[in-house]
Amino acid sequence: MISTTHGEINTPVFMPVGTVGAVKSVAPWELRELGAEIILGNTYHLYLRPGEKLIEEFGGLAKFNRWEGPILTDSGGFQVFSLGTGKTTKSGESLVKISEDGVEFKSHLDGEKHYFTPEKVVDIQIALGSDIIMPLDVCPPSKAKKAEVERAVNLSIKWLKRSKEHLELKAKSLPALFGIVQGGIYSDLRERCAKEMIELDLPGYAIGGLAVGESQGEMLEIVSLCDKLLPKDKPRYLMGVGTPDDIEKATRLGVDMFDCVLPTRLARHGTAYKLKAKSLKFKAAKDGIFEEINLLKSKNKDSKEVIDANCQCPACKNGFSRAYLHHLIKEREILGIRLLTLHNLHTYLRLMDNIRKTVG
Amino acid sequence: MISTTHGEINTPVFMPVGTVGAVKSVAPWELRELGAEIILGNTYHLYLRPGEKLIEEFGGLAKFNRWEGPILTDSGGFQVFSLGTGKTTKSGESLVKISEDGVEFKSHLDGEKHYFTPEKVVDIQIALGSDIIMPLDVCPPSKAKKAEVERAVNLSIKWLKRSKEHLELKAKSLPALFGIVQGGIYSDLRERCAKEMIELDLPGYAIGGLAVGESQGEMLEIVSLCDKLLPKDKPRYLMGVGTPDDIEKATRLGVDMFDCVLPTRLARHGTAYKLKAKSLKFKAAKDGIFEEINLLKSKNKDSKEVIDANCQCPACKNGFSRAYLHHLIKEREILGIRLLTLHNLHTYLRLMDNIRKTVG
Repeated sequence: MISTTHGEINTPVFMPVGTVGAVKSVAPWELRELGAEIILGNTYHLYLRPGEKLIEEFGGLAKFNRWEGPILTDSGGFQVFSLGTGKTTKSGESLVKISEDGVEFKSHLDGEKHYFTPEKVVDIQIALGSDIIMPLDVCPPSKAKKAEVERAVNLSIKWLKRSKEHLELKAKSLPALFGIVQGGIYSDLRERCAKEMIELDLPGYAIGGLAVGESQGEMLEIVSLCDKLLPKDKPRYLMGVGTPDDIEKATRLGVDMFDCVLPTRLARHGTAYKLKAKSLKFKAAKDGIFEEINLLKSKNKDSKEVIDANCQCPACKNGFSRAYLHHLIKEREILGIRLLTLHNLHTYLRLMDNIRKTVG
Repeated sequence: MISTTHGEINTPVFMPVGTVGAVKSVAPWELRELGAEIILGNTYHLYLRPGEKLIEEFGGLAKFNRWEGPILTDSGGFQVFSLGTGKTTKSGESLVKISEDGVEFKSHLDGEKHYFTPEKVVDIQIALGSDIIMPLDVCPPSKAKKAEVERAVNLSIKWLKRSKEHLELKAKSLPALFGIVQGGIYSDLRERCAKEMIELDLPGYAIGGLAVGESQGEMLEIVSLCDKLLPKDKPRYLMGVGTPDDIEKATRLGVDMFDCVLPTRLARHGTAYKLKAKSLKFKAAKDGIFEEINLLKSKNKDSKEVIDANCQCPACKNGFSRAYLHHLIKEREILGIRLLTLHNLHTYLRLMDNIRKTVG
């Protein structure tokens, strides 16, 4: 259980991603009906458009988008690096420039230059009215060498300290600032990063820099390591992970919070998740606890089946056949995207519910 | 009041358009909540994809798309002509070839040749399980000369007779076949067309060939003429019309049924309809009964207003500001399209409700 100014959150929890302030295609009343308890907003996107000042005038993101519930915002660091690293302008200039002070980057919308410091990112998230905020950190690419990862860890620790100091000066009703443990696949770096961050006695800790191309085994190894390092009484948030199977396994390693674009993104491409019956009892299945159903496949063209006869989502309980969904997706009809998105989010939230009932 | 096998319909009625079997972005439960009583399906599109045979296997369109209510299908004629007339292949061949027997056309999807006869179009609509079906007719372009319109009228009358004969032979539980009065802007042609069609004693009559570029005055003149010609005890359907103002005025001239893509199409382009307060009392306003609000305009960028404070649609009653809608539409976020579509359909259906209360 996590307490926020917008209410309490049962853990382990899955947070649907609302990049530009809306979970793609889903209305707030649908999120509530699905049982979502907290949603994620992307600081990078909201800062660029419509701008945090505008959202602040509306009383914060949860008022602006009518969700009216708890919100976690990321720091924007991940987007700054993932949208810019390795890319250069025509004149060979890097799109992202890191200094001790902060990071300069170019907007993906219009190429304009912007500058993030740890302090600025805290200010933006205060303006967004987030319940849980993340510090600016350095996210090296997945193929980064150890020296680069080490520099990222060092800077991330420094920036976290600055974030905490700044937050304590600025905010009256403090949002919860989490630390983000970096260190790539290097145990010693993860360990040092975790230890230095734990000294700051923050209300929660995230595990960052995963779900960037490593195998499930490699990911779980780092999660397992962090499980041993992080305090037992603070929520742990595994950023950007993952499939239902990744999530189920990570909860066994003590992870409390997840966010991932997979259920919404795959829906837009015509893919539905179906939990295998076993997962209802939270037993590990050798070959994973779920299957992906590609509605676009021709075998679904005339299928009278719903996606999942055991599912109570709006698509399944209202009897929408795979054939109809196939048709809608083929026609690029928004209703098809919506029905699959509702189904996939329901499936993720039901999984979390099952896990809570089993372990709780 | 119109009775169908799927229930009764209060008139005057607005029928949301579900071209490919879904009202764009809207779920069937939302249509029911909005108070829609009947929806329209497009025979041309559904015939091409997913095909009427597949839909028949599912028990008809109302089962396939889970609407479970009355459905009217057009004949596909309008699409055949509007998508093909005047266009030629590279070798100069016309995309549409009309003969006494029927019409050959090319699919807008893959260019494949297809052939519609009045009988085939009835068969397709029987397979779709429609409650109200429309006969194949010839829709000349809006700029057509009188001789061309006359040929269209003559053929449309012949084809209607063949449609009626075929329907009576084929269907057990007969859907209602309407006649479509053509004749462009020529009163004498409209008159002859109406008279010959009325002799067939059909359950309803449509006014076709309008809303193709003529002024509101020209349109209403033809509607007024048809009002005098058509039987008082049969429903009259003004195809493809129009703005809230067109509809309000046409109901005064005895029209009972309307369909139009404007509320859904404009929503996708960021435009919302707002009824002026006067219209609630069904009084004519000199400058029209509604305004169009373009949410993309910069004056809406920071507006805390909802679209229409008198509106009870999901967008307005849940307090979504114009600023948030501006943001969503700018981001091309589906939720923005959805909220505007729900608002516009609600506005149309509320208008019909007001008209029924005032005249009923």
